[in-house]
Amino acid sequence: MLAEQALAVDSERLEHHLATLATFSDAPAPAVTRVLYSDADVRARAYLKDLIAEVGLSVREDAIGNLFARLPGQDDTLPAVATGSHIDAIPHSGRYDGTVGVLGGLEALRALKEAGVTPKRPIELIMFTAEEPTRFGVGCVGSRALAGVLSADDLRALKDEDGRSFDDVRTAAGFTGRLEEVGLEPGHYHHFVELHIEQGPHLEAQNLNIGVVDAIAAPATLHITVHGQGGHAGAVLMPHRHDALVAGAILAQAVEDAARSSGAEDTVATVGIFDVHPRAVNSIPSRVFMSVDARDTDAARRDEAIAKIRQAAERIAQERDVRIDIETLNADPPATCGEEIVGTIREAAEGMGLAHTTLVSRAYHDALFMDRICPIGMVFIPCHQGISHRPDEYSAPDDIANGVRVLAQTLANLAS
Amino acid sequence: MLAEQALAVDSERLEHHLATLATFSDAPAPAVTRVLYSDADVRARAYLKDLIAEVGLSVREDAIGNLFARLPGQDDTLPAVATGSHIDAIPHSGRYDGTVGVLGGLEALRALKEAGVTPKRPIELIMFTAEEPTRFGVGCVGSRALAGVLSADDLRALKDEDGRSFDDVRTAAGFTGRLEEVGLEPGHYHHFVELHIEQGPHLEAQNLNIGVVDAIAAPATLHITVHGQGGHAGAVLMPHRHDALVAGAILAQAVEDAARSSGAEDTVATVGIFDVHPRAVNSIPSRVFMSVDARDTDAARRDEAIAKIRQAAERIAQERDVRIDIETLNADPPATCGEEIVGTIREAAEGMGLAHTTLVSRAYHDALFMDRICPIGMVFIPCHQGISHRPDEYSAPDDIANGVRVLAQTLANLAS
Repeated sequence: MLAEQALAVDSERLEHHLATLATFSDAPAPAVTRVLYSDADVRARAYLKDLIAEVGLSVREDAIGNLFARLPGQDDTLPAVATGSHIDAIPHSGRYDGTVGVLGGLEALRALKEAGVTPKRPIELIMFTAEEPTRFGVGCVGSRALAGVLSADDLRALKDEDGRSFDDVRTAAGFTGRLEEVGLEPGHYHHFVELHIEQGPHLEAQNLNIGVVDAIAAPATLHITVHGQGGHAGAVLMPHRHDALVAGAILAQAVEDAARSSGAEDTVATVGIFDVHPRAVNSIPSRVFMSVDARDTDAARRDEAIAKIRQAAERIAQERDVRIDIETLNADPPATCGEEIVGTIREAAEGMGLAHTTLVSRAYHDALFMDRICPIGMVFIPCHQGISHRPDEYSAPDDIANGVRVLAQTLANLAS
Repeated sequence: MLAEQALAVDSERLEHHLATLATFSDAPAPAVTRVLYSDADVRARAYLKDLIAEVGLSVREDAIGNLFARLPGQDDTLPAVATGSHIDAIPHSGRYDGTVGVLGGLEALRALKEAGVTPKRPIELIMFTAEEPTRFGVGCVGSRALAGVLSADDLRALKDEDGRSFDDVRTAAGFTGRLEEVGLEPGHYHHFVELHIEQGPHLEAQNLNIGVVDAIAAPATLHITVHGQGGHAGAVLMPHRHDALVAGAILAQAVEDAARSSGAEDTVATVGIFDVHPRAVNSIPSRVFMSVDARDTDAARRDEAIAKIRQAAERIAQERDVRIDIETLNADPPATCGEEIVGTIREAAEGMGLAHTTLVSRAYHDALFMDRICPIGMVFIPCHQGISHRPDEYSAPDDIANGVRVLAQTLANLAS
């Protein structure tokens, strides 16, 4: 283990980087909105490259904007140990989700470099393109593509809400390489470790510094369209209605019920989008589009909740004489963290005298897809009241610095 | 009564006018979207003025774009008999709602003029500004202002969804007169008669030509905001949620229940708008904005339904620990049609050998507000399957021509 004083993690500098990154946003502060390939995203990427250049690391970008900064190893031909996260932010969210793993990861590499550490294996920092599903409906586009879960053709088939293709918008953002060259072979990396805010209340509530993740919950996304019958809100009497909104409202409750009745607190399900057509005060809604996000640490239990949602949709469609179409965008398997990594993180925290626990990640992370090509691990740090995806998301500078130290130590040990 | 052959209603010309007016739209045909003071609305107004000029009638426009075309009377100092309706169209609606009363009203005046009729009283055609509530949340802006239900200050306080004031957008559309001069004195008009499609299925189902309206249902509009607690859709477990969307969904069902349980088929209630914030797949909705449109021929029964909706909102707010704010935009009294007008319309239909019945208007109409300043009446014509506020809204040319003939005869008799 490296001497703690040797790891000069500069908490103030890191805070400044986080604050500056938050200014590249399409929402007024403190809210952050940074959608894939938007102007704010492109400017944030440029800022990150400037910071990497300051540290003196080499950079590679792939055809979809995944970015790799590299600290060379003694044997630079060995598979690297990697860390990283994302900098895109859903509408009206906060400044710590993802960014702590990218800017904190860079700070960890800087600290190692400044401490004169040259590990046996190279260490890479990855900034993944579009962990958030905002633009294309599917999350972790960058890590999915790296892991071969999204092929070049899958990427080409993606369309945003304005009907623009993935290829079109990535080209407009300056990424023109071959999509066929994005995927990495299994074994390309030796290990992957992601630093992230907990996005849950447990570490703060138990007054702990570090969460050692041992599994990531399995997310699934549905797109549901309810087709009812429109009409004049005054003229069509209640018995003659096939109101798409009311049918969708009952289904939204069924989504909640499906999660609540699973028998395990790990099951969650959320309707985040609910778009009404034609959306007029005096018009009976003829169509509703809604998204469902369902997650569990147990894939079978999650799929059971989804089956309940499908049954409810069938029942509602029949009872109300509406049509309900359900499309599954993704239903990913959960990930179990690598034993060696979990042990290394735990030892690092232990060695620094930090209070830690083992826990499950209920949020989606790029690590979930990196798991397809190498063993993974995650370091969680406390965030205030578990709040995330909101402007008031907050992690204290000391907690972030602790996470960066544990990450740096873990990377150094895994790469040695 | 005028000889029927003397009333040369040109059905083909009227169809052409309706088809041309439908092209001034922000939605692709057959859908029509024509929102107050939009470019499409401004161009449609210009087209209408061209048609009025063709007929040789004088035109006046007031400070908010209400338009008055006048056929002089033998004694032009007497209060006029008026007819008219609106040409604005909610998003993705059809081509007959309102327009039949404006272009059909113009055709009636043209037929009277061409038949050489000079009635004792002048006859006016009114095109009311913004019958539909699309832009400012409140319906019948033009007729409300004429009747003094909306004062100049009320108009100034209106803001659209983009935060633009009424004054701002009317000025941009070229209407710059004094808002204080819009209101008309009671007695300004002798009578007001509106021709309109039924927007209900009864005339068609009973194979009738003409509906003689004897009352207009009483509409009320609520704006409801549900304030919940946002958060990450993966990380916040179900028992800790205060999901604004699910609370709003339960309330939307309560709105339906309130109407269904009123004990009378006349009670209707509709949630037409349901906007979710932040509207992201993986974010728990923190806020929902929804509109409620409730109507009844009996104001007390409608208010009882609204009371039930308020009670449901209180219960949901308590049960789910969310805040629900309810704003009443309008709660208008119903209107009873003038006996003389009802009798005159019935005689006109009778005299032309048209099958007719007496019925209630469940839709909102400008006549509802004209009722505040003069006796009113309405002539309904069949529309296919009662469909309205949809692109497939349809009234047959013969049915429209019958309505125009009955209107012309009624106007002539009331003005004689």
